[in-house]
Amino acid sequence: MDLAIGIDIGGTNTVFGLVDREGNCIAEGSIKTDRHEDVKEFVKELSDELNKIIAGLDNEFDIKGIGIGAPNGNYFKGTVEFAPNLRWKGVINFAELFKEHFSFPVILTNDANAAAIGEMIYGAAKGMKDFVIVTLGTGLGSGFVANGEMIYGHDGFAGELGHTIVFHDGRQCGCGRKGCLEQYASATGIVKTVLEMLESTEEDSILKNYKPEEITSKLIYEAVQQGDIVAMEAFDFTGRVLGFALANTVALTSPEAIILFGGLALAGEYIFKPTKMYMEYYMLNIFKNKVKLLPSKIVGKNAAVLGASALVWKNS
Amino acid sequence: MDLAIGIDIGGTNTVFGLVDREGNCIAEGSIKTDRHEDVKEFVKELSDELNKIIAGLDNEFDIKGIGIGAPNGNYFKGTVEFAPNLRWKGVINFAELFKEHFSFPVILTNDANAAAIGEMIYGAAKGMKDFVIVTLGTGLGSGFVANGEMIYGHDGFAGELGHTIVFHDGRQCGCGRKGCLEQYASATGIVKTVLEMLESTEEDSILKNYKPEEITSKLIYEAVQQGDIVAMEAFDFTGRVLGFALANTVALTSPEAIILFGGLALAGEYIFKPTKMYMEYYMLNIFKNKVKLLPSKIVGKNAAVLGASALVWKNS
Repeated sequence: MDLAIGIDIGGTNTVFGLVDREGNCIAEGSIKTDRHEDVKEFVKELSDELNKIIAGLDNEFDIKGIGIGAPNGNYFKGTVEFAPNLRWKGVINFAELFKEHFSFPVILTNDANAAAIGEMIYGAAKGMKDFVIVTLGTGLGSGFVANGEMIYGHDGFAGELGHTIVFHDGRQCGCGRKGCLEQYASATGIVKTVLEMLESTEEDSILKNYKPEEITSKLIYEAVQQGDIVAMEAFDFTGRVLGFALANTVALTSPEAIILFGGLALAGEYIFKPTKMYMEYYMLNIFKNKVKLLPSKIVGKNAAVLGASALVWKNS
Repeated sequence: MDLAIGIDIGGTNTVFGLVDREGNCIAEGSIKTDRHEDVKEFVKELSDELNKIIAGLDNEFDIKGIGIGAPNGNYFKGTVEFAPNLRWKGVINFAELFKEHFSFPVILTNDANAAAIGEMIYGAAKGMKDFVIVTLGTGLGSGFVANGEMIYGHDGFAGELGHTIVFHDGRQCGCGRKGCLEQYASATGIVKTVLEMLESTEEDSILKNYKPEEITSKLIYEAVQQGDIVAMEAFDFTGRVLGFALANTVALTSPEAIILFGGLALAGEYIFKPTKMYMEYYMLNIFKNKVKLLPSKIVGKNAAVLGASALVWKNS
């Protein structure tokens, strides 16, 4: 049986799986992304893990290639370039680095593009020709499909919604500029929002029991489930900024749906409700109440891993 | 010889032409867009003008259809919907209205999409697969081509860059919201900027010799050519806001080039220079100094009319 290796390189974790053509994950695993100073060491650790799994496979399995989703990934060049949420700076040719360990073809794209392909083939965007996927992880990634085709753009970098500027002179971003969307609508963004709110609010909050460096998006999610006012306001503000950016995105791309994916999207209604409300509030009249805001339908699996693996089928 | 009728419905003027497959304009003309309260009267006046021209044509010419570019035009439905810069409100089925006067097929799209098709076939975007066109007229329109295909979106309304919000609580827009790009980067936008500046500046300015209602973008252009400080600052501010919005557009769509078109783009370096400078200033590092900012190459002709006429060839 044919298998593809799908790898999703995130700011914190790198998740991988061996996936068949129907999207079934035969084996999976993960390693920490940020443990090695040298990117070659990271690729080696990941390759060792994969080779261990491959060595244990029955003969009936035949691996056809490696698909990789990574932040700031370039589909045309196989590179990751100046990714603010990875510790390795500059231009890294991941496709070449993996080819030192494997003889399979290696195809790489933006992590959100990989997730978009996953949702299109196996998930919430099945049958859709025009949609946007937004991944709310350590940063904010996006992938954008029009006329049934992934939009890579001239340079292979299309879909950097996380680096559209939403506030003039806003929060400092890892990319060197100020006010980028991902500084507000992401796991790290909501932590910054809570820290700002805790400094100025008189409200009682569970989150005041923690040191600033202990606050995580998970903790904020736990607090909001207990009705914590500061956590609620933080989700409302996050949804407001995200809704604003999505309304602008709709004006440009007129999608059938926007799919939210990634850690922060798992907060469910706490993030979907304000995002939808403010998206409609900011929406141009001709698009009002027309664009669906959907959760990923790849439950219990990783859409980016599935999508990354699907890159192999699309290219073989 | 086959001819197509191309019509560009603008906020102020409606321009039309009879165009052959090579983009040669055999005959052309224009009427005022805003003279009739009833849209049927407008379509009748335009049809009468066209029929006069058609009646005078040699037998060798064979008209194959009508292509229309219009603000808020919907390619799928042949309608113009809630166009803030036209006096007719609500949903207008222009394709149907024209069919009452002609037996040819009628195809309609957004005015900027029509211009994009014109530039792609006959102008500055020849051979490009990924580009954006921005029309700076009464309002601001945009058309957006990816993978060599016009992006209409799910609803047929993609490309409403003029209605992306660039300032929270900014200038009131005709669409009912605040802070839309077209309230800053358009012929009417630069007039608003000058009026604001004249109210607060101590600087000497030729423009102070005029009543507020007399200020036009043409007058501002004449003033800037004479080195008028207020006019210069107005072009700088317009370029800043437009450059900001274009940098955000690049992050999403990664185009090879952005083409500026329409009345305000005719101001040449006075608008291109600040727009390019601020676009690069606001640009995400991976796109810096890569995206061309070009003027329309359809000189002395109307790209939207050519593009609208080309809709006929694409559909016949």
